[in-house]
Amino acid sequence: MKDLRYILKPESVVIVGVSKTAGKVGHIILQNYINDGYSGRIYLVNKNAEEILGMKSYRRVTDIKEKGIDLAVIAVPAEAVPQVLEDCGKAKVKSAVVVSGGFAEIGKTELQDQITSIAKKYGIAMIGPNCLGVMDPRSRVNTLFLPSYKLSKPEIGGISFVAQSGAVGSTVLDLMAGEGFGISKFISYGNAADIDEVDILEYLMDDEETKVIAIYIEGIKRGKEFIELAKKITKKKPVVVLKAGRTAAGATAAHSHTAALAGSYEAHEAVFRQFGFTIANDISELLYYSKIFASEGAPGGNRIAIITNGGGAGVLTTDAIASSRDMKIAELSEKTKTALRKVMPPLVNMRNPLDLAGDADDKRYGAALEYLDADSQVDIMVVIILFQTPGADSRLAAQVASMKEKTDKPMLVLSIGAEYTEMHKRMMERSGLPVYDSPRAVALSLEALYRYYQYRNRKA
Amino acid sequence: MKDLRYILKPESVVIVGVSKTAGKVGHIILQNYINDGYSGRIYLVNKNAEEILGMKSYRRVTDIKEKGIDLAVIAVPAEAVPQVLEDCGKAKVKSAVVVSGGFAEIGKTELQDQITSIAKKYGIAMIGPNCLGVMDPRSRVNTLFLPSYKLSKPEIGGISFVAQSGAVGSTVLDLMAGEGFGISKFISYGNAADIDEVDILEYLMDDEETKVIAIYIEGIKRGKEFIELAKKITKKKPVVVLKAGRTAAGATAAHSHTAALAGSYEAHEAVFRQFGFTIANDISELLYYSKIFASEGAPGGNRIAIITNGGGAGVLTTDAIASSRDMKIAELSEKTKTALRKVMPPLVNMRNPLDLAGDADDKRYGAALEYLDADSQVDIMVVIILFQTPGADSRLAAQVASMKEKTDKPMLVLSIGAEYTEMHKRMMERSGLPVYDSPRAVALSLEALYRYYQYRNRKA
Repeated sequence: MKDLRYILKPESVVIVGVSKTAGKVGHIILQNYINDGYSGRIYLVNKNAEEILGMKSYRRVTDIKEKGIDLAVIAVPAEAVPQVLEDCGKAKVKSAVVVSGGFAEIGKTELQDQITSIAKKYGIAMIGPNCLGVMDPRSRVNTLFLPSYKLSKPEIGGISFVAQSGAVGSTVLDLMAGEGFGISKFISYGNAADIDEVDILEYLMDDEETKVIAIYIEGIKRGKEFIELAKKITKKKPVVVLKAGRTAAGATAAHSHTAALAGSYEAHEAVFRQFGFTIANDISELLYYSKIFASEGAPGGNRIAIITNGGGAGVLTTDAIASSRDMKIAELSEKTKTALRKVMPPLVNMRNPLDLAGDADDKRYGAALEYLDADSQVDIMVVIILFQTPGADSRLAAQVASMKEKTDKPMLVLSIGAEYTEMHKRMMERSGLPVYDSPRAVALSLEALYRYYQYRNRKA
Repeated sequence: MKDLRYILKPESVVIVGVSKTAGKVGHIILQNYINDGYSGRIYLVNKNAEEILGMKSYRRVTDIKEKGIDLAVIAVPAEAVPQVLEDCGKAKVKSAVVVSGGFAEIGKTELQDQITSIAKKYGIAMIGPNCLGVMDPRSRVNTLFLPSYKLSKPEIGGISFVAQSGAVGSTVLDLMAGEGFGISKFISYGNAADIDEVDILEYLMDDEETKVIAIYIEGIKRGKEFIELAKKITKKKPVVVLKAGRTAAGATAAHSHTAALAGSYEAHEAVFRQFGFTIANDISELLYYSKIFASEGAPGGNRIAIITNGGGAGVLTTDAIASSRDMKIAELSEKTKTALRKVMPPLVNMRNPLDLAGDADDKRYGAALEYLDADSQVDIMVVIILFQTPGADSRLAAQVASMKEKTDKPMLVLSIGAEYTEMHKRMMERSGLPVYDSPRAVALSLEALYRYYQYRNRKA
């Protein structure tokens, strides 16, 4: 197993190929380290400069006094990479992220083989080449060489997102950050000359900071090892997988993109299903599933209670959930109905979905949630809040968030709307509530949650 | 056929039941008219006040000198509505929106029958009771009595959105406004004591300001009339329908909500399909389809070209599109390939999806779009722009928007990301480009567009 520790949690970093010019790859990476507040030791290497941004720059890695630096981030032209890696090896550098492109992806497989064998010779754990690299908001390692104003900064959290492709990776990372997802690791591994998806998944499987793994893949190189890993990994934590090449046209395109031998999608899908992976069919689904697994644990069952301040939204959500063979609309217990009848206005019917009416406020929601939480016939609570209605405000959002802290049941929110709604969605998300914006997203996410824990319990 | 002209384009309005207290229903409605800049004559009626917000208030509608006012907006308690409607009839008021609740939805069917027969007696076209009413951004009529800070204001455009349910209606309207959709009419018709969905659709069918109709329904009362209308309406314009009650549980919930006799969803679905309606299975789909129909016309065929600055996004979009039986990934003509080869960097493969590479800028996109537009083997263009990449900026967004003005082919954009991306999405949306945020949304929308115009041409 390849150890990614020195890549993700380095105590010292050398950035090789730092340009004096702002906007160039190496320069952006250096600025990331500075701006993000990385607290380890940083060394710079540039064969033509002695000082960059007020920091000393070395001609070669071997010129640096400290030996055994944890991580080298390499951003020099492809043909210079072998020499840099040799220097790293001599200086006992433990790991490398090679962001430089110009290897197998343009047919230069020999050059790629050369750097791979140098890395192997010196025991350097290498990510890349041709990759965006890694981000770890806890250690503040960040090799993403994209203009920082184009990418939202993620908060610290439990989702590790792995993508061979840098573009899909950064896109989804940006979206996750914008929606307030907490990130544990982001790893974009490019040509996978040394470290590949199997290595990364193996590492994340035992990484305590990672609660859920989300991965975008175009092809799997080491099928046998992947299957061995698949048997173990989903017993430890949920894995959400988005696999390209579902269709013949898509598989052809994937081959053209990363030379991935996509294999038959059906074969991959069969493996994913057999071993309890959660299959995303779209980027949007990858986000839905990552979100629910990051915040929710195992449900006690599949009986879902829905409360709403808008009848139609309750109906549509019932439709979406009842469309799944695996999910059930809960039958509220008589005890709950009796209790609710005492505190609800006469117009509220004791049904599920429980329509609290358009003037429902924090008190009405609070009472309903208390009784549903106590009802043993309810396993999961879906809270619909339409913030366009008169009674829905920040106090209601805070009330629902506080119930989230009390209950052991999975609980999620559906809120649909623009600015006023978005603000409250963010409020609730920060309190650990997963908030969705369509009945379909709610239903798919609950199904994924339930199925995963069914798998895990069955196999335990 | 009921004439909604006086409701949507009134030259004079009387608001009955305007409270002096801010935040009360009638008061909010008055403020809407003032804030939105309604240019017709406004009269107020309040039995206890002589002046509200500096405007004269009348005791009764019959006290107003002007006879034959176009529209009365009625926001008095349920039991006072019959008398108000009688007064309206005597004053020859032409139409009414009764926002007051407390009728059939709480079992008071007699009271509802009473107001319906008064409206009929005087020939008043009535929307409601128990409804949010109407909004028309062109005439600046707005009876929505929700706090204005909770609702984004829609721009003027071609989408008319109809929802029996006020909560679903305002929620979706808010979302549409927030995403920059242009609205023609919003109509929430509540208990439908007089004007119902058939009347509204008949009106919108011939309304020149309406390019696409989107409707959320729980049940259809006049099935026979609806089918007669269905035969005609989709020959004139696209109709997107979201019908609640797809599942048994959903149908039960719908009945509890609006007492809708939802009937079998399959039967409804069969009618919708037979007559070329576009069926949305979720609120999100209602938005996707409304957006594409509002901006795109008939495609010449089903062959789709995809250009991208991110390989993985191209692959996923290919997968999503190729999953539909009806859509095809276009084979670029030799002429196009030859022309592109001359202007593209050597790394760009002459394939579809056309991956312009991560450093693609406005010039590269511009050239690619010119040739694809000229290629007779391409019917539709999908432009993927990942704004996280270095070459993607406002200039690129402007370039793509300018091509939209030149081409006759349907053309849509896929962009995924947070703040920086959102800003550019809005830029492009304002130029009339439909922008989507997932491959699935793109594929579903294109399929809907193609199928609708297939239906329309077939029946023509």
